[in-house]
Amino acid sequence: MGISRRDFLMRVGQAGGYGAAFATMQSLGLMPMKGALAEPIQAMAGSGTGVKVVVLGGGIGGLVSAYELKKLGYEVTVLEARERPGGRNWTGRDGTVVEFVDGTKQKISWEDGNYQNLGPARLPSTHWTMLGYCRELGVPLEVEINTSRSTLLQNDKANGGMPVPQRKAINDTRGHVSELLSKCVAQGALDADVSKEDRERMTAFLKIYGPLDAQGKYVGSDRAGLKTAPGAGGQMAVPEAPLDMRVLLDEDFWEDLFVEEDWDWQATMMQPVGGMDRIPYAFAKSLGPIVQYSSPVTEIRKTAKGVRVSYTQDGSSRQVEASYCIIALPFSMLKKIPNDLSPSFKKVVEESKMGGGYKIAWESRRFWEQDYNIYGGLSYLMEGPSPIWYPSSRLMHPTGIVVSGYDDEVDKPFYKLTMQEKFDASRASMEKIHPGHGKELKNPVFCGWRRVKWNEGSWIGSYGGGPSGYDVIIQADGPLYFAGDTASHVVGWQEGAALSARRAVGMISEKVRMAKMSGAADGAVMS
Amino acid sequence: MGISRRDFLMRVGQAGGYGAAFATMQSLGLMPMKGALAEPIQAMAGSGTGVKVVVLGGGIGGLVSAYELKKLGYEVTVLEARERPGGRNWTGRDGTVVEFVDGTKQKISWEDGNYQNLGPARLPSTHWTMLGYCRELGVPLEVEINTSRSTLLQNDKANGGMPVPQRKAINDTRGHVSELLSKCVAQGALDADVSKEDRERMTAFLKIYGPLDAQGKYVGSDRAGLKTAPGAGGQMAVPEAPLDMRVLLDEDFWEDLFVEEDWDWQATMMQPVGGMDRIPYAFAKSLGPIVQYSSPVTEIRKTAKGVRVSYTQDGSSRQVEASYCIIALPFSMLKKIPNDLSPSFKKVVEESKMGGGYKIAWESRRFWEQDYNIYGGLSYLMEGPSPIWYPSSRLMHPTGIVVSGYDDEVDKPFYKLTMQEKFDASRASMEKIHPGHGKELKNPVFCGWRRVKWNEGSWIGSYGGGPSGYDVIIQADGPLYFAGDTASHVVGWQEGAALSARRAVGMISEKVRMAKMSGAADGAVMS
Repeated sequence: MGISRRDFLMRVGQAGGYGAAFATMQSLGLMPMKGALAEPIQAMAGSGTGVKVVVLGGGIGGLVSAYELKKLGYEVTVLEARERPGGRNWTGRDGTVVEFVDGTKQKISWEDGNYQNLGPARLPSTHWTMLGYCRELGVPLEVEINTSRSTLLQNDKANGGMPVPQRKAINDTRGHVSELLSKCVAQGALDADVSKEDRERMTAFLKIYGPLDAQGKYVGSDRAGLKTAPGAGGQMAVPEAPLDMRVLLDEDFWEDLFVEEDWDWQATMMQPVGGMDRIPYAFAKSLGPIVQYSSPVTEIRKTAKGVRVSYTQDGSSRQVEASYCIIALPFSMLKKIPNDLSPSFKKVVEESKMGGGYKIAWESRRFWEQDYNIYGGLSYLMEGPSPIWYPSSRLMHPTGIVVSGYDDEVDKPFYKLTMQEKFDASRASMEKIHPGHGKELKNPVFCGWRRVKWNEGSWIGSYGGGPSGYDVIIQADGPLYFAGDTASHVVGWQEGAALSARRAVGMISEKVRMAKMSGAADGAVMS
Repeated sequence: MGISRRDFLMRVGQAGGYGAAFATMQSLGLMPMKGALAEPIQAMAGSGTGVKVVVLGGGIGGLVSAYELKKLGYEVTVLEARERPGGRNWTGRDGTVVEFVDGTKQKISWEDGNYQNLGPARLPSTHWTMLGYCRELGVPLEVEINTSRSTLLQNDKANGGMPVPQRKAINDTRGHVSELLSKCVAQGALDADVSKEDRERMTAFLKIYGPLDAQGKYVGSDRAGLKTAPGAGGQMAVPEAPLDMRVLLDEDFWEDLFVEEDWDWQATMMQPVGGMDRIPYAFAKSLGPIVQYSSPVTEIRKTAKGVRVSYTQDGSSRQVEASYCIIALPFSMLKKIPNDLSPSFKKVVEESKMGGGYKIAWESRRFWEQDYNIYGGLSYLMEGPSPIWYPSSRLMHPTGIVVSGYDDEVDKPFYKLTMQEKFDASRASMEKIHPGHGKELKNPVFCGWRRVKWNEGSWIGSYGGGPSGYDVIIQADGPLYFAGDTASHVVGWQEGAALSARRAVGMISEKVRMAKMSGAADGAVMS
């Protein structure tokens, strides 16, 4: 059933996000949001001096926490289980090893310079917190192509299974809808509701919107594509007839068409030049030895003066004591670590369920560019792994990395397929969208986040602790605070991780301010 | 009245292009055009050996002509009046001098690395001939952002003059249209035309298309924007109410909204990294001394064996003789050069009129990125210079070059303004769209192509010689052939210039083949 976009939004809705939000409509602010900079954290420069904070997890939530704490003068340690920063912000390149919890290892073998962002791969222009960090850290960005009119839609049950270009689907749909509404207006269907003047304006508007001809008919448009492009000499454009409305009316077929208009999927979207992991590496460079790698956490204890966190490094057990702790670990990992979370918090964590987002990526000749004029964007299929996601980087390069299958595999038959069966299904999707080209795919990698070591999940699927579980974990549990997209209404996005980290730092700063006012130099609140 | 896009299409229509083409609808080909490579020129390798061709003009039409002729073994000379290749394909940078025919000179003073494409600035993914040359010549491409949901629309007469984000205009429009059609369907307005099953599918489809609520109402959508973005902790998304349908119904206000869906303006669009002139410089590098610069043509004569072209170079008169001549000069220049064109050709050239496209570009802090989350794309105003065109290059760089005013100035009051008045009007447009930021604009340049030396026009406005004028000049006039976008149905685009050049080379090759078969080693047809 195509991309997990809808599933994903449902999950966010479950968490009290968009779904809940849209239940109440509020008044209108027409000016564009001037939110290019994140709200400043309410804390004085140097206010963290003398106060220790330990941050668990070196993903975006942990890195932003440490980066902001450091700015305020805190003494910070980040404990990261892996030998690299970024967590799910991970870019696969030649030599990258994808290791699953069952011991399966895939070593990527790709041409130098080719890469795939295995986790997050998009920065919406409305995610100004993350964009602000890119600006601050000097991470060069380029366009991530999420909207392309040359990409395709395929449905075994429609149009004889032949793929349809998005330009055709989108523009013929609008044309037919405009013709039908224009007809209704002409027949007087809206006479009781709309004034004569507005009906006339509506009719004139629909002529452009469709576009419709002088008789109010939709007879096709160059917007929907041309059979032959205009050329030199006598070669005029040869138009295409529109797709039949019956084909367009199959709602399932078209559902994926409109995700490009979702708030956080709209153009312009961006990506760091060279790979998404340029962001965590830029944070890590700025933090230096604050980030301790290969240091998995083994125990989290509250103490009289804050927290004591145990971890291993170089085969030996170590401990770090601090006044505060920000937990930026996936709940799937946290629940395995002995801890002193209060019962209500523990319940949310232990009963939580993780999503199983995956990507299958292949190296190939860029036949989509060279033979189909497709430069970036996504093609969708109704059956089998979907979407096809074409690379936005290295346009015109002879080879590239293309995704065939980006979905949530949990609770689906796909989950039980062997790796080879998954690759076969992925290749079959490509063959359906681009007949004859499935065989050009080489060197696949399957990154199923439910299986990836140190993650065991792509993002939070559902919170434990009942409907108010989310509201519990956004509070402080004594000296313990949560960060990460899990502690935000922007699940599955780096923006959520960054915002929750900034919020945690703000909450700690407020406690430290109070503690210092009452004479505690270490900023700790006595338990 | 905003961008000249509509005017432009009208002009193309006048020339027998889109407008004429759409008069007859033809049958349907659903598969995407597989035209990523240009049709090969019908000629054998080496078939031009021993045959001389002189090409007049070193714009894209002339360069492609010479490049393809050279491939076939012809002996080629390109005569170019300027000291650089490219013609209208021209990139302004620090130090570039824009010289008008009246002697006015503007020397650009911009930060190193900032630039503006003063002529063509977009490569549609459907212009596979030009894209093919970029691939062949190794010109790196990046995305040119033509579609952005964060850009703005402004109309003094609507919404109190306040700019509206395109995401709101586009998505609220679709929402209202969907609600109205859904209502009509429910009231039975289409019962006579559409089956019950299709009406039900239509209703279900409109719920997603709008999107509409369970009652079939459009109550807004995150697609149209959020009052407050979702965030961390308790910060849920706060929706905006939709714009009133009455505001949306003002057809003039919204006309510019749909140009992004036109066949040759649709995403994905591209641009060469570093400036559009990377293309002519790549051609010129490949051609070497074939291109003679600072060599304006002074006379074009037919001879018994072909053509004799006179030109000046280093202050002295020179001549070149050849069997064939490709004229890739603007008609505005050609009509001033004494020539032996046949009367019917001469009439078309002499009676032709040129368009007056212009751009006004400024250097500025990137307030559109930093304060508005606008990364590339275009904002439109109904009055005054329009559109605002934000740079697609150097995203996140502190400064950039932004266009405020890109239109055809001919036959408009704007044409008569002084340079300073033009700049004032341009700055005022920016102030309307981005209040408070007009004053940030610095170092303007006005490139009015009607005034530019060696062009005196942006593109063909109308052909002389009556309605069939175009059909005349696409034929051979003895040894003389036309190339350039003027000799194509893709006026104003490099693609038209390239296609017409390839066509001229093909026509010449056919004549040469025949001449050689009859024993003429120089390939010439005796006159």
